Amino acid sequence: MTTSTRPVPDATSATPSLIALDWGTTSLRAYLYDAHGALIDTRSRPAGVMHVPGGGARAFDAVFEEACGDWLDRSPGLPVLAAGMVGSAQGWREAPYVAVPAGADALVAGLITVTTLRGTTVSIVPGVIATGELPDVMRGEETQIVGALASDPTLGADRSGVLIGLPGTHAKWAWVTDGLIERFQTFMTGELFAVLRDHTILGRTMRAGASPDRAAFVRGVSVARGARHTGLLATIFSTRTLGLTDRLAPDAQGDYLSGLLIGHELNALDAMLAERGIALADQPLLLIGDDGLCARYADALQEFGHPHARVVAHATERGLWRIASRAGLVRADGEPVCADQ
Amino acid sequence: MTTSTRPVPDATSATPSLIALDWGTTSLRAYLYDAHGALIDTRSRPAGVMHVPGGGARAFDAVFEEACGDWLDRSPGLPVLAAGMVGSAQGWREAPYVAVPAGADALVAGLITVTTLRGTTVSIVPGVIATGELPDVMRGEETQIVGALASDPTLGADRSGVLIGLPGTHAKWAWVTDGLIERFQTFMTGELFAVLRDHTILGRTMRAGASPDRAAFVRGVSVARGARHTGLLATIFSTRTLGLTDRLAPDAQGDYLSGLLIGHELNALDAMLAERGIALADQPLLLIGDDGLCARYADALQEFGHPHARVVAHATERGLWRIASRAGLVRADGEPVCADQ
Repeated sequence: MTTSTRPVPDATSATPSLIALDWGTTSLRAYLYDAHGALIDTRSRPAGVMHVPGGGARAFDAVFEEACGDWLDRSPGLPVLAAGMVGSAQGWREAPYVAVPAGADALVAGLITVTTLRGTTVSIVPGVIATGELPDVMRGEETQIVGALASDPTLGADRSGVLIGLPGTHAKWAWVTDGLIERFQTFMTGELFAVLRDHTILGRTMRAGASPDRAAFVRGVSVARGARHTGLLATIFSTRTLGLTDRLAPDAQGDYLSGLLIGHELNALDAMLAERGIALADQPLLLIGDDGLCARYADALQEFGHPHARVVAHATERGLWRIASRAGLVRADGEPVCADQ
Repeated sequence: MTTSTRPVPDATSATPSLIALDWGTTSLRAYLYDAHGALIDTRSRPAGVMHVPGGGARAFDAVFEEACGDWLDRSPGLPVLAAGMVGSAQGWREAPYVAVPAGADALVAGLITVTTLRGTTVSIVPGVIATGELPDVMRGEETQIVGALASDPTLGADRSGVLIGLPGTHAKWAWVTDGLIERFQTFMTGELFAVLRDHTILGRTMRAGASPDRAAFVRGVSVARGARHTGLLATIFSTRTLGLTDRLAPDAQGDYLSGLLIGHELNALDAMLAERGIALADQPLLLIGDDGLCARYADALQEFGHPHARVVAHATERGLWRIASRAGLVRADGEPVCADQ
């Protein structure tokens, strides 16, 4: 299915049909859609869930009013859908996790609502939980995964499955079959990199480079891959010792360490797939996230023999629209055009 | 060899023969020995290498004078031996690393000296470097290893070897054969634990317990052991998710995380030994370090089937005496008695 032939509506004349919120830990992004799922307007606020003053329901209401009140003034009664940490225990209202395997229908069934002082109903998307010996959770990524799958309805639609990577502070890898998130794993790769750089001895010899040092990054990935049996704890100190022995320049050490960590993440992914008899290099694979970070992961995946990673843009906006459509909040007249603008 | 039959000299009448310094990153410990290697006096200062005001040779001299000047006033001409980061590029004077395989003789051959304003000669023990694709370094631990070997001359004296673990901020594991440090590996386990607790999301749900929670620690070790193919990045987030699902109390999360990290360190050690056809559980094994931390490692080693870890006390003092004896700084009349006091 292609959406490129749809007309992009004129923002001044389009009729709004939905407000959707991507409300995470550090920021709030608000989207205004027309009746075809095209974006009319977008806004961003630094008022993430951890930065809502006071943190109570009134405070969330006030942030929402400040960000979207004028949209509602002009189009009273617009439906509102929100995803992310806004549905956590620290959020506006808790939306209990739904368990894997879970797809768009389970997310719709798990929607909870909150009514604002203005009288607007805000529907909140639940997160997903994988139970077992070591439980795992996501909030927000489930919506991005639904959006990524919407970009190509053949992907992950049957048993053959698709692997979806969401790099970031807490990177997630999800395995999707029959349109359902079957299994997923969180890796604290981004947060670990930041604390190693900012708070350990490894940061003391690092200097920021003028631009990313791709060779140093790939070197780190390669070292990690070679050390897959000994692991991260045994390799990160090499960031310092290679520097001490003049074999890694200060401005290359950050990218080398980044490569080490992402390499160890892919070692783990590789081992998890191998346990199920699946070869990483053969899998259809989507990446969702920041362009620069996705490019790093694509480079790292090449070192692991996977040259086919595809980066999906606008997964959040697509996912929010898809869930709103399935929930009947908007008329489900097909795929959004926003993602192709 | 036992030293328990040696008389412990009276501190007021004993004749000093050596001043030795354990001068690391965060503290300076000074030891005054009698002619038999028994300790007459010890002192500790917070003036680690990173905390010597100004950091120049004069500043190191001043710290040394403040700590040991009265000893030298009473016994002019006493030899002085120092080990640790004091011999690094950021120390008093750099003592270039000696390469593995290295034992007490190589350390003696690598001693460098600095002369104080008073005219005292201070000999500084070199660190040890393991070159190769990923170099590794130690400064201070080589002296502790020499001291641990002195506790039982049969250990590590032939090809069968002994494994020596030095838990801490930067834990080291060394493999000693024929009395030489043949190979070693640094694990940033202690520093990683501290930054995960103090600077990441994992610390947010932790509460300090009244006492160490051994069961939570062992649970972490066991989880890590079971996840040896997927590694640390894939398991640490469980500290949070087990808490979110009410399966790990806030005051148990710190010990659980500590167990996870130490478990992954032992996974790496196990894998490194396996590459050489050596089974961890069968190896003679010494631990050097803080009592509480060594007890944790002994618990973790039991989970890995190794019930025989022996903790060596006073390894630093023994090692300094042994190196001073070998270097001819003191009359080499046998083992020190200090370690058995």
